[in-house]
Amino acid sequence: MTADRQPVLGILGGGQLARMLALAAAPLGVKTLVVDGVADACAGQVAPLLVADWTDYAALEAFASKVDVVTFDFENVPAETAHWLAERVAVFPAPQALAVAQDRLAEKTMFRDCGLQTAAFMAVDTREMLDQALATIGTPAILKTRRLGYDGKGQFRLHSIADADAAWASLGAAAARHGLILEAFVPFQRELSVIAVRGRNGDFNTWPLTRNWHTDGVLSMSLAPAPDIDQLQGRATELARTLAERLGYVGVFALELFVKDGELLGNEMAPRVHNSGHWTIEGAHTSQFENHVRAVLGMPLGNGEARGVSAMFNWIGDLPDPAPVLRTVDAHWHDYGKQARPGRKVGHATLCAPTSAALADRLADVATTLDRLPQAQPALDALTR
Amino acid sequence: MTADRQPVLGILGGGQLARMLALAAAPLGVKTLVVDGVADACAGQVAPLLVADWTDYAALEAFASKVDVVTFDFENVPAETAHWLAERVAVFPAPQALAVAQDRLAEKTMFRDCGLQTAAFMAVDTREMLDQALATIGTPAILKTRRLGYDGKGQFRLHSIADADAAWASLGAAAARHGLILEAFVPFQRELSVIAVRGRNGDFNTWPLTRNWHTDGVLSMSLAPAPDIDQLQGRATELARTLAERLGYVGVFALELFVKDGELLGNEMAPRVHNSGHWTIEGAHTSQFENHVRAVLGMPLGNGEARGVSAMFNWIGDLPDPAPVLRTVDAHWHDYGKQARPGRKVGHATLCAPTSAALADRLADVATTLDRLPQAQPALDALTR
Repeated sequence: MTADRQPVLGILGGGQLARMLALAAAPLGVKTLVVDGVADACAGQVAPLLVADWTDYAALEAFASKVDVVTFDFENVPAETAHWLAERVAVFPAPQALAVAQDRLAEKTMFRDCGLQTAAFMAVDTREMLDQALATIGTPAILKTRRLGYDGKGQFRLHSIADADAAWASLGAAAARHGLILEAFVPFQRELSVIAVRGRNGDFNTWPLTRNWHTDGVLSMSLAPAPDIDQLQGRATELARTLAERLGYVGVFALELFVKDGELLGNEMAPRVHNSGHWTIEGAHTSQFENHVRAVLGMPLGNGEARGVSAMFNWIGDLPDPAPVLRTVDAHWHDYGKQARPGRKVGHATLCAPTSAALADRLADVATTLDRLPQAQPALDALTR
Repeated sequence: MTADRQPVLGILGGGQLARMLALAAAPLGVKTLVVDGVADACAGQVAPLLVADWTDYAALEAFASKVDVVTFDFENVPAETAHWLAERVAVFPAPQALAVAQDRLAEKTMFRDCGLQTAAFMAVDTREMLDQALATIGTPAILKTRRLGYDGKGQFRLHSIADADAAWASLGAAAARHGLILEAFVPFQRELSVIAVRGRNGDFNTWPLTRNWHTDGVLSMSLAPAPDIDQLQGRATELARTLAERLGYVGVFALELFVKDGELLGNEMAPRVHNSGHWTIEGAHTSQFENHVRAVLGMPLGNGEARGVSAMFNWIGDLPDPAPVLRTVDAHWHDYGKQARPGRKVGHATLCAPTSAALADRLADVATTLDRLPQAQPALDALTR
């Protein structure tokens, strides 16, 4: 605990989420201290950075002594590290809540317990269990690691039972370490996410449902508020609240959902600020980053209502020319300060407008100028149909 | 010049303006490096800080070698320091432009040359010149230092010629060092400011006129866009453009204006981002801080159009309880991370709303809860009359 009047928020992981958390914390008078294993972690450009591994307990002891609350940029911090810290300083979300979201099997089981349907799933620890699961669930199906997967990593899609050998060759080694799960492939019509926040006093709030499009398992475009969702907002909000209360969750999380035949299915829960909520920085009255800081520090939560309509381009691998975005009214550039690398999330841009029609015009203009029309087309279709 | 793909913006002075510049620079992929004479300068919480005096040329040499462009948080950086840096690295605004804005006599002379009327003024270097000026200008009048004054400091108000002895006792010693200026007191009806930006390529943009109220010479409240300004916006924009072009100015500046009998009078020009433009962070499509960074780095300028109506409370001396602001829809808290001290600017809060009536409701609620109604009352009167 620090003596200064300004609280210090410790962040485990120094990527773009930590960077945007630190930028949101500063106006609240909250200092940040980031821990990451690499010295050029991009959050280190805007906050003090402690370079340490997750098992460097001497460094973590020093870190714990300097911060009032600990939170996460990276949900795959080892459970031992999170528990060790939680014995020394307030950690939000609590390690117990994190553990459920880190394990696809526990997560999907909880979804069902809370009344949220999911694709059929079965645990797979051995090759025999894979054969049994395929016999029960059928194909197409997806074999996934239970832990440590994100952005489509640690996944293998099976089109027929004949793919079982290849799937096991790809992920069998991970079965012993992390366990696997086989999930039925859901021919969904839409992907949505709801970003939600719960405070230390139990206050709860959500942002409008966001519609998302992925390319190769990585988010490429979001649109918020999601068009044509009718009664799904109320249902998504209630599900998010039920999950948060069951977990005693504190902070922001994302619940990723599929829409199939008008019904919501639970895909996964991300126990942190989420890529599909980046539009809230400019597109909502309070951003997911600001509300996460408020929640974990016990400050009053802000309102998540949307200001008009927003579309977010994710920049994967490298950044395009910023000029067309900078020249567009109410368009906002976010360069994470990272070096280009294939598949890496290096930035995003959010375009805002008062109406869907105005947003479609801006989005089409920017996408055309940047030669990124394929990336924007699904959102354009959703805005204009 | 740095080799990194990310440009580095050097900022002279590490106060709240540097802090908000650094927070705006990060999403643009621009790194910042701040120089200040004190180790706890509040910008150092969000950007690397070099602790050095303005005459420590070894430290300034190291600073110049690490940055691509230099700008100012503090316009009273010694002219020698600014010129010395400008021989080594791009400095915006240029020292020549800064010099005019630093000298009330040169500034007011330029205003008149550009067609902007001012209160009557005369240079005062000696006690005899003060008597002559008082005989010409009359009273009430204000004796001011030509340089280094801000927030009402270095000023003495004369109600009658009998106050000349007291005025000279207060400021005579400064006459030899900085020179003085005697200005007629203008019985103005309103104080306005226009924040403007000019790019390295000559592009020019303004934000809507802001109405300001001061207490003891320090800004206490701003309202934007200023209500009932009719044709004054066009006139203010053209004056700001003329001044910027005459100075070859690059970056954001504020032109403070009085309105007397429907006419604009020039008060002063602040060659930097300005307290009366803080509302632009949430209340405009592009903030003054972001556009200053864009301008000095040669990036395209953003649109300064207002989003609805905004009111800014300045927090002087110490911070009130943040909770009533945090709980208000579209209200935004800014704690500068400074220790409390009488007269010090320690933070601000901006309240935004889609209409003047909605803003008046939010402003009255927050002011009442904070027991700050006297601070808000003039803005409430302007919103509701």
